[in-house]
Amino acid sequence: MKAYQCGALERTNILGRAKELASTELIEKTETKYFTFANPPSELSLEFGGKLGPITLAYETYGELNKQKSNAILVLHALSGDAHAAGISKNDGAIGWWDNLIGPSKGIDTNKYFVICSNVLGGCKGSTGPSSINPATGKPYGIDFPLITIGDMVNAQRHLIDYLGIEKLLAVVGGSMGGMQVLQWMVSYPERIRAAIPIATTLKHTPQQIAFNEVGRQAIMVDPNWRMGDYYGGPKPVKGLAVARMIGHITYMSDVSMEKKFGRRFRTEKEPYKFGAEFEVEGYLRYRGDNFVKRFDANSYLYITKAMDYFDLLNGKHLRDVFKGLKAKVLVIAFKSDWLYPPYQSQEIVKACKLAGVEATYCEIDSIYGHDAFLLEIEEEAHLIKHFLSRASNDQRPGV
Amino acid sequence: MKAYQCGALERTNILGRAKELASTELIEKTETKYFTFANPPSELSLEFGGKLGPITLAYETYGELNKQKSNAILVLHALSGDAHAAGISKNDGAIGWWDNLIGPSKGIDTNKYFVICSNVLGGCKGSTGPSSINPATGKPYGIDFPLITIGDMVNAQRHLIDYLGIEKLLAVVGGSMGGMQVLQWMVSYPERIRAAIPIATTLKHTPQQIAFNEVGRQAIMVDPNWRMGDYYGGPKPVKGLAVARMIGHITYMSDVSMEKKFGRRFRTEKEPYKFGAEFEVEGYLRYRGDNFVKRFDANSYLYITKAMDYFDLLNGKHLRDVFKGLKAKVLVIAFKSDWLYPPYQSQEIVKACKLAGVEATYCEIDSIYGHDAFLLEIEEEAHLIKHFLSRASNDQRPGV
Repeated sequence: MKAYQCGALERTNILGRAKELASTELIEKTETKYFTFANPPSELSLEFGGKLGPITLAYETYGELNKQKSNAILVLHALSGDAHAAGISKNDGAIGWWDNLIGPSKGIDTNKYFVICSNVLGGCKGSTGPSSINPATGKPYGIDFPLITIGDMVNAQRHLIDYLGIEKLLAVVGGSMGGMQVLQWMVSYPERIRAAIPIATTLKHTPQQIAFNEVGRQAIMVDPNWRMGDYYGGPKPVKGLAVARMIGHITYMSDVSMEKKFGRRFRTEKEPYKFGAEFEVEGYLRYRGDNFVKRFDANSYLYITKAMDYFDLLNGKHLRDVFKGLKAKVLVIAFKSDWLYPPYQSQEIVKACKLAGVEATYCEIDSIYGHDAFLLEIEEEAHLIKHFLSRASNDQRPGV
Repeated sequence: MKAYQCGALERTNILGRAKELASTELIEKTETKYFTFANPPSELSLEFGGKLGPITLAYETYGELNKQKSNAILVLHALSGDAHAAGISKNDGAIGWWDNLIGPSKGIDTNKYFVICSNVLGGCKGSTGPSSINPATGKPYGIDFPLITIGDMVNAQRHLIDYLGIEKLLAVVGGSMGGMQVLQWMVSYPERIRAAIPIATTLKHTPQQIAFNEVGRQAIMVDPNWRMGDYYGGPKPVKGLAVARMIGHITYMSDVSMEKKFGRRFRTEKEPYKFGAEFEVEGYLRYRGDNFVKRFDANSYLYITKAMDYFDLLNGKHLRDVFKGLKAKVLVIAFKSDWLYPPYQSQEIVKACKLAGVEATYCEIDSIYGHDAFLLEIEEEAHLIKHFLSRASNDQRPGV
């Protein structure tokens, strides 16, 4: 599974691997579906005020919803993820971004659970975002798209869950920005979840986390092709977006994992010009940056990172009041070498749960993979999640 | 001294503060001088091959050289520093970048010592670099300037020391890239130094350190005004350089120092457009980036960061052989919260010294300022340096 160790959230289009897996017939072929908010409500009221509509969410489901509709798990993606969390896409053969965790007999077992994953509001993988058509102008929104929040993303997901006829989710699960959405579900819709698994995440961004996002945004906005967000139909700000992604990649890995993966090795084929990529780590970052721009919209990058920066479940509240009244069980997972979302931030989540009398378990996994560990250090993570879901699932059986 | 706590190496032009200090008459007025390599040698042989010339080094001196010429200390600057290390510039009133350490009765006491600081080869503050005129074309070098190394910088400094008539330096001192030059002096000219103080530095860059530099270089090179380095006389790649500097600033601070300085506070005057600077930390980074481009050349940024990335005193050698035969005393200083040049890298320097039988002292200062601590956590640092220099100085008195 070497391809899985190559960095962050981009492991789509690993076609060779996809074919190999497909031949084993263990992998489900999946298809992205689209849900457009029906009338009423055709619009969503936004946290910063105003309404947005029409709204479409791209989503996928894996496994079967049981008769009691009690086995549904909502999986929430990180900054650059999408609805295609598991299996092989019927469309382009891409493997889901958390396929190592979700599937038959895996950590989130699709033989037992009905798994839903949707692309976030503001995204660029089928859900309404800045690259969608603005009904008022007939052209893509660009930066006329309103500022959105993690709360808006979760409100949109709640409409999808309503549409699927699910009153109560067995669990919400996600890492990084996916974890922020998990925390937001715990606050916005505590009565609609039985369990929650926030992974490698935080109650609020620190200035350092904001700073890394801000530099990425600046890299995009100084690209002359950004043109105040109005680049659709013309050349795109791919160079700025690639730099933003390179910064991201450094923060997703750890000092140790980079040392192990690259050391100070030089590339075998050096580029023949000055300041070309010479060290392997340089070639890797350029490759990652260049690949990312093929699949991601620069304006979505701006909106989504801004939503992460705004996210603040404390916001003047006392820690004990954040999860007050929550009945769900919580499993908080952090990774020792994650310096982007350091374990102390996960410990604060646990503390908030404990102060509110919420049943919370904390697991800190000893991984060298940094923030990426939530996608890579899968064996221990899967074990923890499997066991936790099984407990949450059993608790709802009559007589237990 | 709030102005000193505002970040990294840029505290020039704090004119208000300068006037205040000038009025106390405690601060020396300083002047930058220029040394051009005489014939022979008018050229410098470079580590990557080829020769470079003519070469000029901008330098300043503070204090008086004694009759025995035994009290000279060479101070070496970091990535964006210059020759103006101390006092107030006669020219523009700027305070030296390490003025809190160097001066009468300070950590490096100019009543006792003769202090020299020169702008590095490849720089843009008076020393020969990519913005200098290429004698072959009559135009600035741009990227026709040869790739240089930390070794080349130190060889050039050695010519300056010869010119000043100093056979043996009492000490070489510097932090960050300045520390790399200190280590290079220990290897290249061990017989010409009595003591060495490498601060917050490393024997070699890790892939993470290379990666941060590489993203900065990419940000510059994707700026359309970079034009393969041929921008002199036209618009400069200021936007790319500002992004590079912003990335740098994040790595110079610590999670804790950013939390303390900015928290999640919003700016009082928000910019009236979407994705303007809203959080204080965003405003700070933009301010730092925009200021930097007024005083620094983008091509110098490329060459100097590349020299740092190439730097590798191990390079296949055993640790015990790096400082073999060195007679100088060594004081290694690191800072607990420095995650750009973490203490483990300083500990490796100490280990290399010990294995080679070199007398080395290690001090890890408990600061929250991250890498910037070497410029800010001055009280303890000054105390350590003062005591160490006094010992080194006394050791050379006859009969001691």
